Amino acid sequence: MSRTFPERAFAAASDLGEKPREECGVFGVVGHPEAAWITYQGLFALQHRGQESAGIVSSDGRSFYQHRGMGLVGTVFRGGNLEHLRGHLAVGHNRYSTAGSSTLQNAQPFVAQYARGPIAVAHNGNFVNAFQLRRKMESEGQIFVTTSDTEVFAHLIGASPARSLEDRIVDALREIRGAYSLLCMSPRLLVAVRDPSGFRPLWMGQLEGAILFASETCALDAVDATIEREVEPGEMVLVSLSEGGPQVHSFRLPLFERRAHCIFELLYLARADSVVFGESVALKRLAFGRQLAREAPAEADLVTGIPDSANMAALGYAQESGIPFQFALARNQYVGRTFIEPQQRMREKQVGMKLNPIRDVVAGRRIVLVDDSLMRGTTMRKLVKRIRNAGATEVHVRIAAPPTRYPCFYGVDFPTKTELIASDHTLEEIRRYIRADSLGYLSIQGMLTCVKEPATYCTACFSGRYPLEFEGQDIQQLSFDFSHNRDRN
Amino acid sequence: MSRTFPERAFAAASDLGEKPREECGVFGVVGHPEAAWITYQGLFALQHRGQESAGIVSSDGRSFYQHRGMGLVGTVFRGGNLEHLRGHLAVGHNRYSTAGSSTLQNAQPFVAQYARGPIAVAHNGNFVNAFQLRRKMESEGQIFVTTSDTEVFAHLIGASPARSLEDRIVDALREIRGAYSLLCMSPRLLVAVRDPSGFRPLWMGQLEGAILFASETCALDAVDATIEREVEPGEMVLVSLSEGGPQVHSFRLPLFERRAHCIFELLYLARADSVVFGESVALKRLAFGRQLAREAPAEADLVTGIPDSANMAALGYAQESGIPFQFALARNQYVGRTFIEPQQRMREKQVGMKLNPIRDVVAGRRIVLVDDSLMRGTTMRKLVKRIRNAGATEVHVRIAAPPTRYPCFYGVDFPTKTELIASDHTLEEIRRYIRADSLGYLSIQGMLTCVKEPATYCTACFSGRYPLEFEGQDIQQLSFDFSHNRDRN
Amino acid sequence: MSRTFPERAFAAASDLGEKPREECGVFGVVGHPEAAWITYQGLFALQHRGQESAGIVSSDGRSFYQHRGMGLVGTVFRGGNLEHLRGHLAVGHNRYSTAGSSTLQNAQPFVAQYARGPIAVAHNGNFVNAFQLRRKMESEGQIFVTTSDTEVFAHLIGASPARSLEDRIVDALREIRGAYSLLCMSPRLLVAVRDPSGFRPLWMGQLEGAILFASETCALDAVDATIEREVEPGEMVLVSLSEGGPQVHSFRLPLFERRAHCIFELLYLARADSVVFGESVALKRLAFGRQLAREAPAEADLVTGIPDSANMAALGYAQESGIPFQFALARNQYVGRTFIEPQQRMREKQVGMKLNPIRDVVAGRRIVLVDDSLMRGTTMRKLVKRIRNAGATEVHVRIAAPPTRYPCFYGVDFPTKTELIASDHTLEEIRRYIRADSLGYLSIQGMLTCVKEPATYCTACFSGRYPLEFEGQDIQQLSFDFSHNRDRN
Amino acid sequence: MSRTFPERAFAAASDLGEKPREECGVFGVVGHPEAAWITYQGLFALQHRGQESAGIVSSDGRSFYQHRGMGLVGTVFRGGNLEHLRGHLAVGHNRYSTAGSSTLQNAQPFVAQYARGPIAVAHNGNFVNAFQLRRKMESEGQIFVTTSDTEVFAHLIGASPARSLEDRIVDALREIRGAYSLLCMSPRLLVAVRDPSGFRPLWMGQLEGAILFASETCALDAVDATIEREVEPGEMVLVSLSEGGPQVHSFRLPLFERRAHCIFELLYLARADSVVFGESVALKRLAFGRQLAREAPAEADLVTGIPDSANMAALGYAQESGIPFQFALARNQYVGRTFIEPQQRMREKQVGMKLNPIRDVVAGRRIVLVDDSLMRGTTMRKLVKRIRNAGATEVHVRIAAPPTRYPCFYGVDFPTKTELIASDHTLEEIRRYIRADSLGYLSIQGMLTCVKEPATYCTACFSGRYPLEFEGQDIQQLSFDFSHNRDRN
Repeated sequence: MSRTFPERAFAAASDLGEKPREECGVFGVVGHPEAAWITYQGLFALQHRGQESAGIVSSDGRSFYQHRGMGLVGTVFRGGNLEHLRGHLAVGHNRYSTAGSSTLQNAQPFVAQYARGPIAVAHNGNFVNAFQLRRKMESEGQIFVTTSDTEVFAHLIGASPARSLEDRIVDALREIRGAYSLLCMSPRLLVAVRDPSGFRPLWMGQLEGAILFASETCALDAVDATIEREVEPGEMVLVSLSEGGPQVHSFRLPLFERRAHCIFELLYLARADSVVFGESVALKRLAFGRQLAREAPAEADLVTGIPDSANMAALGYAQESGIPFQFALARNQYVGRTFIEPQQRMREKQVGMKLNPIRDVVAGRRIVLVDDSLMRGTTMRKLVKRIRNAGATEVHVRIAAPPTRYPCFYGVDFPTKTELIASDHTLEEIRRYIRADSLGYLSIQGMLTCVKEPATYCTACFSGRYPLEFEGQDIQQLSFDFSHNRDRN
Repeated sequence: MSRTFPERAFAAASDLGEKPREECGVFGVVGHPEAAWITYQGLFALQHRGQESAGIVSSDGRSFYQHRGMGLVGTVFRGGNLEHLRGHLAVGHNRYSTAGSSTLQNAQPFVAQYARGPIAVAHNGNFVNAFQLRRKMESEGQIFVTTSDTEVFAHLIGASPARSLEDRIVDALREIRGAYSLLCMSPRLLVAVRDPSGFRPLWMGQLEGAILFASETCALDAVDATIEREVEPGEMVLVSLSEGGPQVHSFRLPLFERRAHCIFELLYLARADSVVFGESVALKRLAFGRQLAREAPAEADLVTGIPDSANMAALGYAQESGIPFQFALARNQYVGRTFIEPQQRMREKQVGMKLNPIRDVVAGRRIVLVDDSLMRGTTMRKLVKRIRNAGATEVHVRIAAPPTRYPCFYGVDFPTKTELIASDHTLEEIRRYIRADSLGYLSIQGMLTCVKEPATYCTACFSGRYPLEFEGQDIQQLSFDFSHNRDRN
Repeated sequence: MSRTFPERAFAAASDLGEKPREECGVFGVVGHPEAAWITYQGLFALQHRGQESAGIVSSDGRSFYQHRGMGLVGTVFRGGNLEHLRGHLAVGHNRYSTAGSSTLQNAQPFVAQYARGPIAVAHNGNFVNAFQLRRKMESEGQIFVTTSDTEVFAHLIGASPARSLEDRIVDALREIRGAYSLLCMSPRLLVAVRDPSGFRPLWMGQLEGAILFASETCALDAVDATIEREVEPGEMVLVSLSEGGPQVHSFRLPLFERRAHCIFELLYLARADSVVFGESVALKRLAFGRQLAREAPAEADLVTGIPDSANMAALGYAQESGIPFQFALARNQYVGRTFIEPQQRMREKQVGMKLNPIRDVVAGRRIVLVDDSLMRGTTMRKLVKRIRNAGATEVHVRIAAPPTRYPCFYGVDFPTKTELIASDHTLEEIRRYIRADSLGYLSIQGMLTCVKEPATYCTACFSGRYPLEFEGQDIQQLSFDFSHNRDRN
Repeated sequence: MSRTFPERAFAAASDLGEKPREECGVFGVVGHPEAAWITYQGLFALQHRGQESAGIVSSDGRSFYQHRGMGLVGTVFRGGNLEHLRGHLAVGHNRYSTAGSSTLQNAQPFVAQYARGPIAVAHNGNFVNAFQLRRKMESEGQIFVTTSDTEVFAHLIGASPARSLEDRIVDALREIRGAYSLLCMSPRLLVAVRDPSGFRPLWMGQLEGAILFASETCALDAVDATIEREVEPGEMVLVSLSEGGPQVHSFRLPLFERRAHCIFELLYLARADSVVFGESVALKRLAFGRQLAREAPAEADLVTGIPDSANMAALGYAQESGIPFQFALARNQYVGRTFIEPQQRMREKQVGMKLNPIRDVVAGRRIVLVDDSLMRGTTMRKLVKRIRNAGATEVHVRIAAPPTRYPCFYGVDFPTKTELIASDHTLEEIRRYIRADSLGYLSIQGMLTCVKEPATYCTACFSGRYPLEFEGQDIQQLSFDFSHNRDRN
């Protein structure tokens, strides 16, 4: 049963950047002598899914070895930190999170000891009833050391009366609702689970006899693994390490929800070279761009996309419209987490530090500028101005997605509703704000015509129709309560 | 009821350095606008009680602010880390621990959220039944994220059915046995507790209207506080922050054990300028040295002590024996944690890096060399050789403590029994091993004649008579199980 | 007078990566209260010109303030290092250098004190007679602390009998031959100089009354400055800071050489949005691609470029050939200096970490793969294989530049001649090595038809015709001698 | 010829801490496979001679390998920095310097390349005519990159017309006047030189066939080397590395000055276990204390010294006076460079962080408090107050040195004359300022009776009689001019 999210919940969301950001990428290896190294490489390829912290836990069949840190994968594992992560099993995690809780404590994989030994959990997604579960556990005497819902899941595993880890996981998942692609590791076992709705992607691969799991196929490509298949929605895959190599067993979770793949993975989150939900991300973006050209045509001299993520959609728009594609914006490849922004005055200039119009390309031209989403509109507003300053005569903004009006509760970190410009402004108001000559979005309907199975997607951020029941106060109260604990480790 | 510790437990202890090391120092402040700063200074003065990690948690009455790190206090709080620790309450902790678990996860204060909000716990001591409690909790479904017994305590607080923090603490302490000086902080309350035996010291002071707690008086002196009194064995002091300033309430715990002050605090652990258990540490060491001179006289030209800790005892020996006191060993003040020891070959030389005999003082002389303890004997063996090489004609080693034969389970980290040279060697064997011309120890009886109330002390490490019942397998199993989880954060 | 570079010199060049790399970017500000901040931003936009070290020296009219470090601009100036760089003048520098001398000592700007005070020099280019000059100075008694030719220049300034800095600079430049865009700063004066051949670009801009200099226009754009003009080949611009603001004076150096703009700036080095030598870099790359399509056509289903630098040329090829342009390779934006490469085995995989073919785009297709240069061919060989593995039926490699056969002595860091695959292999041999179905280069002639003034360009790396006389043994001996001094600061 | 230092020069000295600090310690090794490791250990033992920066340069006979950094030896060479310092020769340096020039640039050894190859110079001392020489060289066209006089020396070596390094060194030393113990290394040769006056100590030792040099014998002891002899004043020792091992040649410099050993080495600078100028430092301090007791007796209950440096003198005072020696002050061994001092308010407390009176020792007692020097008096003033607060009835301050009234120009970094309390205050004024019950100094005459050859000592800081001619404006102008160049590397 789905329902519209109550208005009051919006106020609790934190102040965010212009673009939506997913919370996580996960990677796991069973049965490889360089498990941690491969996990490191896999996380590197999944860096776009989370840049705040990274961590790897490995196992040599008896002990866990772990390292976690704030920052990019390459930074966290600098200086020999990988060499200590011994063993043939490993799970890794990239994390993005909101400011208040972006602390080392929350860095994953989460490691705990329960009655049957140590366990490591790497989680991509969001449990919608984590808050209620946590409150209930607290009232029953449990204590919590992080603000992440992954700890709630670990508590449920610990509390299960079952003996085996897999049964405990099933018990835990019976309690939980939400979006998740989970990797759970005990010293000799890796368990991969994907929620019944299939919100987030999760893939399985093989490399030199080892079994691998990754959020996206691009990570399996990066380590030269063979891509096997997607873990099915509602599937649990157990891989144990025996002497003959990894043993794989697959189970169906006794949980049922309608499919609800996150369409934002196709639009923006996943890397272009990945396949998710059985679709080529690159080709879908091309198709979104083509459909956009049909729905929102423009008279112009050239089409360009905001690099790199909107390039494919821009090319599709160009192909369908017949207007030539051009590279009209140069991107500073080095802008990233290292750029210091000490003062508001500097922040103002940051668009210019990232993107610069190529004067001789845009001067005297009418431009179609394609982007893959429009959240607050402030960056676009500055960019349109810069393009005009560089001599463009007209700037027609086209968004290769529908207007983003609602927050996500399944693991994507959007600006709040009040910050989402499309939540309470008309098309014309937005156009005027960003100072474009015209503005066009893709329709939800049009977007869905581009995918093979439209009914299997979640479009809540566009439509407000949330596929999974949840308690509205979760997010709000969670973020309030846990803010008591501000860590700077 | 006391009993001798079973032999098999000794095997589990880890490989340690030459000297015993205490686990912790604690410091707390209620009601000062610079609470974290004062705590930082207090921890600095308690640095000798733990050098592996340090941490401070502060509270502004609503939120916690925390920072923890590996290393010395000055290193952990370098670079502005203190400035973020806002509020009028703070607790801090210095930690020493054995190699296996010396990880950031175990750094204290331990912070968790339970049903009634966040709590921070700083703990000096050791719970002797922590292992059983943890096993029981795990079997009931609880999970653990550290290997420290402080987490067990936090779980007990969470699990208590009582409403107030103080009642929950009492409930928790009913379950626990052992040595502890604890500081527990909630957003507006600091609770200080000392175990009924009074194993570890804990002091109370005042500074500019604020209430302070510290493991030793030297930390109160360091911040120019007024020393109020020792927290009594079995006492719980509550300090809440009201508008009129800190409110202090004292309670007696409903727990009873005979007094068992750690005599090692007087012999070695506490700083010379502290007062612990109502005794001046400096004057006791002088007295131990005098008593040693009576029990183990020597014919010699000069008396010297191993700097800095044995200086007082050496002076006492000199005063009583009439043999002149001299400074015969120069100490490199910079040797500490920063010295790299990359190869065994270098390690061999480390005695020379630390201590160097003053040739013109020792040459041609008969030396009485006083130390405050003798654990393995390997360092002493090297030192005696160096002193002879510098020209001393005789070296008479005198230890201002009885032979250390048994491990401590109340918070002091000794070498294992098999490594304690006195556990299975005669006086003559030890003398021959360290190549001294003669060797003398203080007797237990003689040591106790130097203190005001001999019956109130624990001498288990010398006598094997453990004042507090405990389960022998604790340490062994604990260290085994938790070694599954090796962290390098 | 130009001549061919002697063969034996090639042996001395160091082992380098696949791509040519320029040595430096420079940036300068006179007359702005946030001079260092603006310089920092400018260097950020010039990061592509050098990633090994960065530095800024500022002046408040009396004292210099400086900070230099190894790594990217954002890393070097992390943590408040900028705040100490006071004053209204600043010069900054990004550096790339070969392995042997990539040390902090060599990081620029180079600061020294001569008879008339301190001076800071930031240098982009290469003096071809630096070695002879240095040897001569050494034989006359001078000492050197770096291995960079910038120090030679500073020595010449110090040794000049002239009084004013500008006259000393002219004296120094009379001694020197080579490629240079130099910024020299004394406490109240900034002098910008460009060599008479105009090898390297150098631009002048204005911002809020301040005068700015930058290697490329993209850096002026990044700080929202107005682009004024290129500093002319053989021009010296003096900007002094008076009370009324910066005073600008321009002089013509009494040195004459024929124009020899580095064509590699257009092909590869400069950022696409920059204008250099009066040409739009982006449009030139488009034109090179078009010309390439004319000279080396292919039968194929799609054209793609190696991102980001070859995208423009690929688009030009597509436009001219009528074969559709596509994005066929996904780039990991996070691959950079942070990726650990601990073992050869990992290094092998690095192509896969950087670039991944988009399976559904290339499968079953005949691909034209456009790159902007081909040095050793090893990376291309791996990439072609990956594209075939992803299902491409044919891979036609097209290089939007002529074959690179000769090293550069004017500031671009190429592989050695023996490593340049085109230096001693035929087209067919190269094609077979990289396993392409066909291979085509742009002709020198064809390349030059794309620019406005073909005669003003240096094409030495393609033709071996070096526009400026130099002593062949320079590079060889220099790199040999200075290798005595290996620093790890 | 000696003369009194002109008053105006005092104004230029920089603001310093309470205690005098020497500039440097040097260490060198020829002919050992672990030359850099041994040098590291030697520098560790010489850490008390300089804590601001440290550096080692090694040579494998062809190339130099070097690492320098700010901070303590253990910090600078953390993390594998030593492993790259290959070869059988090494020179190392600890540096202390005044605030303005405490930069990485000035960290030694100074490395430069001159006509005959690379050279490394480690220098302990001060050239009194460095400023004039530098001005002259600058006017002749030379440039300088540091503010240290070591660079002046390197320039002189470069400028010498001689062929061999040793002849060049002699040429350089002919130009220079001052205090120096120098180690100069070329790829296969180490040259040790001590100035004709013998201001600073320099020792020679042997270890496993290798020749070692060190500022003090304690460093030779620390590496278990055999102490050979002092390098003589005016002696130059050449050690070259041939196949048969190190070859030693000794020469007498053609320079003549009267002996002028720095008496401050005995009083304060050298470590107690060192022998310098043929005297045991420990025994001299004992003798100074005894003489002090004769010259400035007191009626008191106990004698104590400020740890650690004044302990020996206090013991001597006690022995001579018959008043019992006691340890009355506890020192926090961890106070050092890591203590953060963010605000003035905290700085006020720092005496309390370092030293704490032992209440039960001092209460009700009359104390003789012995220190080894009194510079500004501010620390002593606070300490006397703390001792009184701890209950002492009388505090009699005794300084085991004469009043320090004049700055040092031979390598010891004193407070300025205006800050030296004894320079313009009477004994009674000082006593009142520090709030002591009585105050006594050692007389210059009395001090000199304690050493074997009184005529060979420099007592300029007490008497104002400078043994070596120098130009008064040196220091002043030097520190002014070079302040143009403030580096934060």
